[in-house]
Amino acid sequence: MQRILRAAARQGAANGLERVQMHEVAKESGVAIATLYRYFPSKMHLFTAVMQSQIQRMESAVADVDPTADPVATVTELLLNATRQMLKTPLLTHAMMVSNNAALHATHADANLTHASFSALLLRAAGLSDPSPRDEQLGRLIEQSWYGVITAALNQRNPIEQVEDDIRVSCELLLAAWSRS
Amino acid sequence: MQRILRAAARQGAANGLERVQMHEVAKESGVAIATLYRYFPSKMHLFTAVMQSQIQRMESAVADVDPTADPVATVTELLLNATRQMLKTPLLTHAMMVSNNAALHATHADANLTHASFSALLLRAAGLSDPSPRDEQLGRLIEQSWYGVITAALNQRNPIEQVEDDIRVSCELLLAAWSRS
Repeated sequence: MQRILRAAARQGAANGLERVQMHEVAKESGVAIATLYRYFPSKMHLFTAVMQSQIQRMESAVADVDPTADPVATVTELLLNATRQMLKTPLLTHAMMVSNNAALHATHADANLTHASFSALLLRAAGLSDPSPRDEQLGRLIEQSWYGVITAALNQRNPIEQVEDDIRVSCELLLAAWSRS
Repeated sequence: MQRILRAAARQGAANGLERVQMHEVAKESGVAIATLYRYFPSKMHLFTAVMQSQIQRMESAVADVDPTADPVATVTELLLNATRQMLKTPLLTHAMMVSNNAALHATHADANLTHASFSALLLRAAGLSDPSPRDEQLGRLIEQSWYGVITAALNQRNPIEQVEDDIRVSCELLLAAWSRS
């Protein structure tokens, strides 16, 4: 499974969603095409899974968060790091976002999982083990606003300094209630 | 031209981007197919133009804004009204957003116009005739965060009460510097 996701990520980064071919992914990961389709009936399923595996990797990073650090600084750093990674491979990021949205339209339970787990990740990074409804709303707002910043960065090719400053200022303003300083 | 845009909007709302046919748009608007393609070489160009005409309509509404009203309340109401309209025709909204993003990827000058004019519209609605760089950043942040809220509403089918409350709270937190109360 990991080999499939790695091959998909590499080919997605190199070629973009449109030009990725399922049989090339099968070939590179050394599985039969029928096996690949059994796991992932479409490219949309495949790249939704790639996105989930990237969120899982972020989760391991969150486990190491310093519990005494300021929650706003922690969430800001987490989003800045994720953004830098994502903008290094814009075609893969675009493929994951389009696939996840398409999966949501098709009401795949998987895709809703992505959002639920990303919000939960942000709350955990902020050290909020028992979030109030207001905390959950703030987690949702920062996720949504980050989504808008990333989309603008990908589509309008905003300069990276502006993108990073937009993320810092959104975190500062939206998450002021979480600040300990 | 108006007839073409109206026919496209109606068919987009009824059928969604994939199922809209250029020849059906030509037929309903009473122009020859060659004429339609001369104005709009693709569906992507067509729905980017529909989005621009909707922004233009919002611009006339902004001209009537009460200059003594609180800027945050004005921007909030403007975004809430636009959101309600857009979520009444989710297939059309999706068609416009996908087309505008695709146009941006293809670096059509038109599509960048959409963003520039929407940001300018928000600043004008807030009564900021001479915006500072910080005001421009806040205008961009509220546009990006609203984009994330709308995308989530369309894709995850969030309940409308939650969507509206998310918009109110984002405006309150991101635009606090513009508040006069």
